[in-house]
Amino acid sequence: MTALDRLTTRFRRIAILDEAVGMLHWDAAAVMPAGGAAARSEQLATLRELSHATLTAPETADELAAAAAAAADPDQRARIALMHRRWQRATALPPDLVTAASRARSHCEAAWRSARAADDFAAVRPAFESLLSLVREEAAALAQALGRSPYDALLDGYEPGLTAADCNHLFDRLLAFLPDLLGRALEVQASRPAPQPLPGPFPVARQAELARRFMAALGFDFAHGRLDTSAHPFCGGTPDDVRITTRYDEDDCLKALMGVLHETGHALYERGLPPLLRHQPAGEARGMAVHESQSLIVEMQACRTPEFAAWMAPRLRTAFGGEGAAWATGNIHRLVTRVSRGLIRVDADEIAYPLHVILRFRLEQALLAGDLAPADLPAAWGDGMADLVGVRPGDDRDGCLQDIHWYDGAFGYFPTYTFGAVMAAQLFAAAEAARPDLRERLREGDFRPLTGWLAVHVHAHGALRSWDEILRNATGGPLDVARFRGHLERRYLGEAASASS
Amino acid sequence: MTALDRLTTRFRRIAILDEAVGMLHWDAAAVMPAGGAAARSEQLATLRELSHATLTAPETADELAAAAAAAADPDQRARIALMHRRWQRATALPPDLVTAASRARSHCEAAWRSARAADDFAAVRPAFESLLSLVREEAAALAQALGRSPYDALLDGYEPGLTAADCNHLFDRLLAFLPDLLGRALEVQASRPAPQPLPGPFPVARQAELARRFMAALGFDFAHGRLDTSAHPFCGGTPDDVRITTRYDEDDCLKALMGVLHETGHALYERGLPPLLRHQPAGEARGMAVHESQSLIVEMQACRTPEFAAWMAPRLRTAFGGEGAAWATGNIHRLVTRVSRGLIRVDADEIAYPLHVILRFRLEQALLAGDLAPADLPAAWGDGMADLVGVRPGDDRDGCLQDIHWYDGAFGYFPTYTFGAVMAAQLFAAAEAARPDLRERLREGDFRPLTGWLAVHVHAHGALRSWDEILRNATGGPLDVARFRGHLERRYLGEAASASS
Repeated sequence: MTALDRLTTRFRRIAILDEAVGMLHWDAAAVMPAGGAAARSEQLATLRELSHATLTAPETADELAAAAAAAADPDQRARIALMHRRWQRATALPPDLVTAASRARSHCEAAWRSARAADDFAAVRPAFESLLSLVREEAAALAQALGRSPYDALLDGYEPGLTAADCNHLFDRLLAFLPDLLGRALEVQASRPAPQPLPGPFPVARQAELARRFMAALGFDFAHGRLDTSAHPFCGGTPDDVRITTRYDEDDCLKALMGVLHETGHALYERGLPPLLRHQPAGEARGMAVHESQSLIVEMQACRTPEFAAWMAPRLRTAFGGEGAAWATGNIHRLVTRVSRGLIRVDADEIAYPLHVILRFRLEQALLAGDLAPADLPAAWGDGMADLVGVRPGDDRDGCLQDIHWYDGAFGYFPTYTFGAVMAAQLFAAAEAARPDLRERLREGDFRPLTGWLAVHVHAHGALRSWDEILRNATGGPLDVARFRGHLERRYLGEAASASS
Repeated sequence: MTALDRLTTRFRRIAILDEAVGMLHWDAAAVMPAGGAAARSEQLATLRELSHATLTAPETADELAAAAAAAADPDQRARIALMHRRWQRATALPPDLVTAASRARSHCEAAWRSARAADDFAAVRPAFESLLSLVREEAAALAQALGRSPYDALLDGYEPGLTAADCNHLFDRLLAFLPDLLGRALEVQASRPAPQPLPGPFPVARQAELARRFMAALGFDFAHGRLDTSAHPFCGGTPDDVRITTRYDEDDCLKALMGVLHETGHALYERGLPPLLRHQPAGEARGMAVHESQSLIVEMQACRTPEFAAWMAPRLRTAFGGEGAAWATGNIHRLVTRVSRGLIRVDADEIAYPLHVILRFRLEQALLAGDLAPADLPAAWGDGMADLVGVRPGDDRDGCLQDIHWYDGAFGYFPTYTFGAVMAAQLFAAAEAARPDLRERLREGDFRPLTGWLAVHVHAHGALRSWDEILRNATGGPLDVARFRGHLERRYLGEAASASS
């Protein structure tokens, strides 16, 4: 048995334990009765502890060194590097810090839930200050181990290799046109009649049935996955058993449907990961930016086109017995491409969304650097929103309390949403260039030109290529904001006119 | 940290891993898409291996010896003895034998599925012979470690302490009256008009809704459990999150309902296990005989009484819009107390059921002893059925291929069904003596006199008392066949007349 064989066995065990965690996490979110929560926490903690112990066992370091020395080719080296990265991040943190931070996360998240409900930032501030100070310690320890800046070390945890410099480069380019584009898009929108809302109610069972039809059109394989309901939609499970969830609103059928299309994009990526590298770091999804590019290329790039609206509209009419002007393709397309200066990130349209992200990118760096005290966060949030999106929240619930991320200790995550959005536009353009019939086929609910292309150019690489390499290989060039800009301008300044005619 | 503390921590980890196995097993049976099976097997195998390794670690033996030497009181000694028993059974088998037997089980079970579908015993015979020979090796190794006979060592795996002598003692007494009682019950039944079947179809959603109402009446706490659908009904999950399943027949609503009541009896036992001993061998269910007594006391003793039928009948009428004589209480009671000379154990009534078990008890001992060759099993089965139940199967599918147990290597399990049935009658009589309103309260769907008594006299003991001690403590005496006989005579020779009037 070579060192690489031993590592492969070790990481296989880790991955299988992590799969069990994934399934039990899905169960907790989708079907578990409330009274099972305490026992479930212990099951998850025990499995995570075993996974962590398997990764950080004393033998791992020697195995990694021996395997690296014996690596026969670039692919082996890449496989070992991904194992090494996992091990390095896991061993960088002193066990006491891991325990303290884990407790602080649970405590702060619980405090945040009450504080958000009561719109009372002061109530979560002490817990948040404690957590922030531990996250800074974690970032410092990771920074030292990885030879990166503390913030880059956190970013790397969500999208390997992503840096603050990458973020600044992208966000500067976005800021050069997005605020102006948002204003112009709102003007175009205001110059035309407002879309009519679809008249509900929409029974949940029919929404779910229609969602499954849409998933099937996308190629979701129900022999290897499920759709269920949870309070916070997600894509979980394992590549061989992908579990996506949504939540239904009886007054708005488009919310759940578009959400399901988004999660199906994530699901196709998981399902398309290379089976030969199953249970190895190299066979996993690369990172959250690449993951988000796959959900957004489905939801935003493909499913908010007028072509897909033409397929979707008659199916909505049939499912809900809809009649009249509200159910026309043009109206439905306008409904799924509304823009607004909203306060809430998760409800934001694709023009405003990066502005929400940029605000968080600025604030989280300031918080971590100590340049912004938690006490000053609400005011800084309000100013930032007014500056970037052009609205100011009337309370903290719609302001700095709206997202769970920071209160769960997740700093460095937000930028991946916008990298995903920009990558999605660039990948979609490349897919269209390779398959000129791509858009037209969406009129028939046929996603194969898109999903077939993604399977080869993104999914099949697993974690072996960085977000940047995936883009270069698939599109011929580095991240290109012009594609994203062109997409938004066509859709919100130009395309909308033709779709609505 | 004392040795007992270390053992407590060790067994806690084992129990939590086993809980994760339980939840993933439920998932596989109730919700998993077919394509998830291969990955799930690996998850289960890994978790079981970790659980086994934790139990059989080299330190366990020393910890057990030190803890036993330091035990302060009988309860501690009992707790340690249960840990020791678990460890002893796990370490008795050489690892190579465990691996070979596990493979042979999977192989034989798969062969049995095809063989049963094709009614072709010869097709499974080679796999069955191999498995049988490994089970004999296992029984011999366990016998040596435990100082029991090989068959007793297997029985002990399902109900600790149960012996072939116990079985012979019970079964001899049952054989003294059951065959005659079956004949007389059939005569009584034939002398009266046959019950009218309830006219279906019965929509699954309404059956499920009604089943949940019945579960709620029994005190099933839906904050700590669920009802779902699976091909083979079972009670799984964990004490804090009990998952029961059933399967629905659109033409027969009583099948699923009575099945759910049975599983709810199991669920109440699990849920009622002592929380202070959670995650310890002493806090688990005692064994399969005690478990079956809890399902049968609900299903057979309580829910097939005329009193419960009086509560059930109007609820069935309301749920399914039933009208007319078929829906009368008396007719429904007759439907749930039919007796017959049937071929299939799982469909057997409570008079014939022990005869099915006695046949298997005889045959499995003969197979293990080498006194019966697998090739001769079909003929021996036919003769035994003719002798005991008075019918002879026309094929092996309805004969020796009907049950999965042996083909999955489970020898020594069948007797627990009948111990459970006899214990249930005795426990029910004691509960009635303690709570004279018990039966009458069933007319209002009020199970609290029964379930409250069971919680104290059975559930709360966990595994600290043997099946025999539980009986003696709860009823004042040892296993008493007269209670079971009295119950059957009242219901099938006497009570039936009064209930139907």
